[in-house]
Amino acid sequence: MEVSYSSALARHIDEVALIDQHVHGCWLTAGERRRFENALNEANTAPLADFDSGFDSQLGFSVRNHCAPILGLPRHVDPQVYWDRRREFDEAALARLFLRAAGVSDWLVDTGIGNATADVATLSELSGGRAFEVVRLEQVAEQAAQEPGDYASAFEEILHRRMATAVGTKSILAYRGGFDGDVTEPPASQVAEAAARWRDQGSTRLHDRILLRFGLHQALRLGKPVQLHVGFGDRDCDLHKTNPLYLLDFLRHSGDTPIVLLHCYPYEREAGYLAQAFNNVYLDCGLSVNYLGARGPAFIARQLEMAPFRKIMYSSDGFGPAELHFLGAALWRNGIHRVLRGFVDSGDWSEADAIRVVDLIAHHNAARIYHLGERTN
Amino acid sequence: MEVSYSSALARHIDEVALIDQHVHGCWLTAGERRRFENALNEANTAPLADFDSGFDSQLGFSVRNHCAPILGLPRHVDPQVYWDRRREFDEAALARLFLRAAGVSDWLVDTGIGNATADVATLSELSGGRAFEVVRLEQVAEQAAQEPGDYASAFEEILHRRMATAVGTKSILAYRGGFDGDVTEPPASQVAEAAARWRDQGSTRLHDRILLRFGLHQALRLGKPVQLHVGFGDRDCDLHKTNPLYLLDFLRHSGDTPIVLLHCYPYEREAGYLAQAFNNVYLDCGLSVNYLGARGPAFIARQLEMAPFRKIMYSSDGFGPAELHFLGAALWRNGIHRVLRGFVDSGDWSEADAIRVVDLIAHHNAARIYHLGERTN
Amino acid sequence: MEVSYSSALARHIDEVALIDQHVHGCWLTAGERRRFENALNEANTAPLADFDSGFDSQLGFSVRNHCAPILGLPRHVDPQVYWDRRREFDEAALARLFLRAAGVSDWLVDTGIGNATADVATLSELSGGRAFEVVRLEQVAEQAAQEPGDYASAFEEILHRRMATAVGTKSILAYRGGFDGDVTEPPASQVAEAAARWRDQGSTRLHDRILLRFGLHQALRLGKPVQLHVGFGDRDCDLHKTNPLYLLDFLRHSGDTPIVLLHCYPYEREAGYLAQAFNNVYLDCGLSVNYLGARGPAFIARQLEMAPFRKIMYSSDGFGPAELHFLGAALWRNGIHRVLRGFVDSGDWSEADAIRVVDLIAHHNAARIYHLGERTN
Repeated sequence: MEVSYSSALARHIDEVALIDQHVHGCWLTAGERRRFENALNEANTAPLADFDSGFDSQLGFSVRNHCAPILGLPRHVDPQVYWDRRREFDEAALARLFLRAAGVSDWLVDTGIGNATADVATLSELSGGRAFEVVRLEQVAEQAAQEPGDYASAFEEILHRRMATAVGTKSILAYRGGFDGDVTEPPASQVAEAAARWRDQGSTRLHDRILLRFGLHQALRLGKPVQLHVGFGDRDCDLHKTNPLYLLDFLRHSGDTPIVLLHCYPYEREAGYLAQAFNNVYLDCGLSVNYLGARGPAFIARQLEMAPFRKIMYSSDGFGPAELHFLGAALWRNGIHRVLRGFVDSGDWSEADAIRVVDLIAHHNAARIYHLGERTN
Repeated sequence: MEVSYSSALARHIDEVALIDQHVHGCWLTAGERRRFENALNEANTAPLADFDSGFDSQLGFSVRNHCAPILGLPRHVDPQVYWDRRREFDEAALARLFLRAAGVSDWLVDTGIGNATADVATLSELSGGRAFEVVRLEQVAEQAAQEPGDYASAFEEILHRRMATAVGTKSILAYRGGFDGDVTEPPASQVAEAAARWRDQGSTRLHDRILLRFGLHQALRLGKPVQLHVGFGDRDCDLHKTNPLYLLDFLRHSGDTPIVLLHCYPYEREAGYLAQAFNNVYLDCGLSVNYLGARGPAFIARQLEMAPFRKIMYSSDGFGPAELHFLGAALWRNGIHRVLRGFVDSGDWSEADAIRVVDLIAHHNAARIYHLGERTN
Repeated sequence: MEVSYSSALARHIDEVALIDQHVHGCWLTAGERRRFENALNEANTAPLADFDSGFDSQLGFSVRNHCAPILGLPRHVDPQVYWDRRREFDEAALARLFLRAAGVSDWLVDTGIGNATADVATLSELSGGRAFEVVRLEQVAEQAAQEPGDYASAFEEILHRRMATAVGTKSILAYRGGFDGDVTEPPASQVAEAAARWRDQGSTRLHDRILLRFGLHQALRLGKPVQLHVGFGDRDCDLHKTNPLYLLDFLRHSGDTPIVLLHCYPYEREAGYLAQAFNNVYLDCGLSVNYLGARGPAFIARQLEMAPFRKIMYSSDGFGPAELHFLGAALWRNGIHRVLRGFVDSGDWSEADAIRVVDLIAHHNAARIYHLGERTN
């Protein structure tokens, strides 16, 4: 079922402006089909096997279904036809098409990866929307390690400087040891020792848990939302160590700073529970909804179990192909419509409530915690 | 879809008498709106944030949908209208309305919490149904600690005395250390030492694992059903330590005494597996179905995966607002209807089988293990 | 809804030939009703309780629904009527009926259990299809322990001899300690010591982790698919230790040999993630779909989340009653139809894509990795 225009709910979902509260840059330079197909697989860090195709997945089918019309092609078009058509555009032109089709008013951009992709200003220009930075804490650590003198002071100084304009921070502790260990704030002496050790080792890719914990607690102090990678990502991550329930003790002492649990698959029910348990915990659907394609509604429905409706937010987590920045929005609109249409048709919810919850997830909740003035739409 | 009266299954579900096999007292004294809204959030032990509302959740929407008509209001009524109307009644009057609307013949009441709420006899009087006690083992422990002399003897004596009329016991080991540790029976010498230690420390809130294990095994010996809190509850509980699979070794040596896994979210599939694996293991939907609201059918459907149908039971786990005692029943009726209607419409089940399974879950299974003479209905 | 013949997808699913890529022998000798009912419960290793019936479960309902017509009875027939009719046939006659009704072209038979059940050749004869052996590694270990001389050499010799005609291997490490420990290849000296120890102890049921790891890595070297029991099985297995995410490190170093994650319940989402993360990881629906009955579509839908479509395979894991070899196919056809019909009706997938994905899961993927020449159908 396409989003039907026969109901106020369907019309509202189709038109509602989104705040994409966690996203990365899109590509700016041309690449081969192999690069594109590999970008349709998140978990695999190796090149796809010869017998495989990035198109033969829920995400691949979604590209052919939802992105093809943006390029003037019929839905479900053949992969080769899609690829041939896509090559007729340069990446900036693709970005303009897809980003503007997403109906996103504000992009909150994690700048911690992807030097070859669009930066915050470029994303704003390409999309015609506003864009704000989200600062990755592990990147701040690497910058601090390059500074002379006291590591902790350098970290604080860089963080404060960058956060003057940024709207939040992001931690990838999930990738650097996981949540099933100490997440308390380390004493200053341990931080100094750990920093010295890391600098001696060349300050490459940060895995030192003391410094990871230090950064996280510095970010908490700022009061601006702290985003945490949770669950689904690439295979460098020990997925079973990213169950957000391991964060219970950390959350019990995290104060009022909003903590945003990103992605969450397959832990979206646990994340929803945490959003009910703590006034400062939020959850998000980014990355997961893109990769789930036709199964996105099932994921969105599970997000609507234990989590209070003022604690759920939209994001795409798009990175690389501009298709992903658009698809996140297209699939979320489709998915939330199916789920809420079901709730309304069964008599469980009123349509007015459903519309109000759409607004909360689409932009109100994010606007509130990131202090973004909302546009009218 | 409201429960439709066009089918024998729908009529049967609408009328079937329930045994609410795990419930607490309802409020008897008036309170403010803040108390009510906080009571619509189970996981959070802190007051809800100012920006939040207990009404903006699946449970809140269910209150407005299903409870409003009991108070003479239209479905989906505004929260303020609901609250204003609710204030016109005292809590006993509300209890009479909601408890009698639940269609429950028997209430099995965990008396371990809530001194300010209705006791067993009051619940019976307010509801017009029968009520039986379920004895909380950690409360027996606290009582035994107050007695002079040997702790183990005192525990046994109190337990036997209280169990003369009670129908089962309940353990909250999940809250006092979780399942991922030793659950074997401790030797008498260790029990005596642990009891002395606990008494020296003032015998407050029991966390000593030796004494918790002792109590659990004393209960097992009685042969009456032992209820275990599993999964979803408030944030004092380390949810990841309440995965019932950690109980495998305990269950392998638990003999014939029925073990009832309560709540189970998000471990209902694991609990269903255990119900298939052990002749003496049962599972329940209490608390979860209330909090899931429009998503209740998805949970009820997952309970109907691996669990044999003679091992599943109904409960509400209502506590505080009498709405919860009613909603459990209303949402379970709605949910089981949607799920079984789907099984029948798809040709997977016959309608006669569906009706029989409703009876098993609604009352037959509970009547069998708690030795309750069933009422006709 | 029965599979409808009004669509090309429905017709294709009804007729598509299946490769049952993990199955065991069916019974050849008569037994009592008690044996039959116990065979409808996988998890319980004890006889079913007197108050219970193997028929009162999703699997039991499926037998009455789908198997009754094969025996000339109406759907949903009473258990006693089903049993009386079943007794009119001997087990070989039942096998001929049910195996031929399954629409399976090739059976890949794990011969590691069930001496009293049909062997590979008999299964081929009874079914009229092709049958190939899958060699259980723990059985090879037991055979090697009986040989004189060096254990490792004996293991290698037996494995190579048996694998000359077999198409893959199978490990039940899940049952012999689980995945949450060392799964690296042990050094030769440790293998020799462990083998000596095991031989001294009588070489009964293998639990020595060194020897289990040795066998697994020997199998990896062969390059033929290695099947791993994952998740759902009987209660001897510590289900929480069979989360396939514990295999991440093993998989990171497993090279190109296909690794097939069997059963997977309740970890099918985690297994799907691993299938996306590693070019050589596959997942399967066997055992689970049988036991889920009317809930099979929900499981099949979750398999279609993160897993690329070229990494999913069909199996029944039938063992004992020939009903199970047939039901796997009947329930999978029903389930995949409901799920894909939904994807197509909602506009998410094209019908042509759905038909192509059916072929991948039904036989193409298995034919590719097991190097089976496909039959036309």
